Amino acid sequence: MSTVERDTRHDIIDVAERFFRQIGYQKTTVADIAKSLRMSPANVYRFFDSKKAINEAVAERSMSELEATVAAIAAEKRPASERLRDILSATCRINAARYLDNHRLHEMVACAMEESWDVVRGHIERYDAILRSVVADGIARGEFTARDPVTATHCVRMAMLRFCHPLLLAQCAELPGPTVEEMIDFILAGLGAVRSAA
Amino acid sequence: MSTVERDTRHDIIDVAERFFRQIGYQKTTVADIAKSLRMSPANVYRFFDSKKAINEAVAERSMSELEATVAAIAAEKRPASERLRDILSATCRINAARYLDNHRLHEMVACAMEESWDVVRGHIERYDAILRSVVADGIARGEFTARDPVTATHCVRMAMLRFCHPLLLAQCAELPGPTVEEMIDFILAGLGAVRSAA
Repeated sequence: MSTVERDTRHDIIDVAERFFRQIGYQKTTVADIAKSLRMSPANVYRFFDSKKAINEAVAERSMSELEATVAAIAAEKRPASERLRDILSATCRINAARYLDNHRLHEMVACAMEESWDVVRGHIERYDAILRSVVADGIARGEFTARDPVTATHCVRMAMLRFCHPLLLAQCAELPGPTVEEMIDFILAGLGAVRSAA
Repeated sequence: MSTVERDTRHDIIDVAERFFRQIGYQKTTVADIAKSLRMSPANVYRFFDSKKAINEAVAERSMSELEATVAAIAAEKRPASERLRDILSATCRINAARYLDNHRLHEMVACAMEESWDVVRGHIERYDAILRSVVADGIARGEFTARDPVTATHCVRMAMLRFCHPLLLAQCAELPGPTVEEMIDFILAGLGAVRSAA
C-alpha cells in the first residue's frame, strides 16, 4: 500500500468514526463517508468492501490503542501488583471516556460483537496475553499466591467486566456497586497479593 | 384479591412466560395470551394494564424464586464461605438453565432492563442484601479478612456478572474464561477467606 493509500484508508476510518459517534452506526452510509471526503463511494469500496469492514477497522484501531497503553505499563520495571493496578485503572479510564458519554458508540460495539466476533475475540486474547504476562510475573516473584496464571488472568478479566463492557458501563452506572479502586483491591486480594499497609 | 382472581393472574403469567419462551416477547400479543386462556383481552387487562406489566410479573416471579433459593442457603447453620459458595453456584446454575438454552428469553430480559429498570433494580438490591448478610457474618466470625461488608458484597456480585447477566452468559460462552468454580475460588480469596486445603 502506498503512502497516499495509507492516508486515504486512515481518513476513511477517521470520518467513519466521527459519523458513528454523531449519528450512529446504523444510520451512517458509505455514501455519507465518501461525500464527506469528497470522493466517490466506489473509491471507499476500493479500501473497504463493506460498512462492516469499516466498522472493524474503527474497532481495531481503538482496541490496538488500548493494547499499546497496557503493554507499555506491563513492560515497566515495577512490582507486578503496581503494574496490574495501573493496567486495570487505565483500561477503565479509557473505556469510560470512550463509551460512558457516548451512547451511539454502543451501537457500533454491539454491531461489532454481532457481526465481527473474531475481531472482538482477537482483542480479548491479546489483552489477556498482556495481563497474563504480569500475573505470571507476580506469581513467579512470589508477589501473588495464586497458582495458575491462565485461570487467574481469566478471573481478573471477568471481575473487571462491569468497567469494560460498553453495555454494562451504562447499565451498572445506575446501580450501587464498587468503585474501580475497590474492585482492583478485591482483585489483588483474589490473586493472593501480599497486602500493602492501607 | 379472591382465590379465583389469584389463579387467573397466575395463569396469565404462566401462559405469557410460555409465549415469551416460544415466540419471544416482541411477537407475543395480549390477544395471543387471552386466546390461549379462552378469555377476552379485556379480561387480561383487568389484571395487567399492559404487556409491560405482564413482563414485569413474569420477571418478578422468576427473580423471587431465585431470591428464595439463595435466602434458604444463607439461613443455614454452616460456615459463611460454604454458604457463599453454594449461593453463587446455585445462582449460576439457575441463570444458566434459564437463559443459556433459550435466546428468546434474552429479549424479555432486555426489555425488562429497558422498560422496567426499577423491577430489575429491586431484585438486585434484595439479592445483595442476602449476599451481604453472609459476607457480614463471615467477617464477624473472622472467616473473611475483608473489612467492609457493603463494598465486599458489591465486589462479589460484580465478579459474578458474567455468570448472571443473560446477555453475557451468551457472549462469554464463546470466549476463554474461568469456570464457575474457579471464579468462586477467586472471589473467596478476594474476601480474604482462610484457604482450605485444596
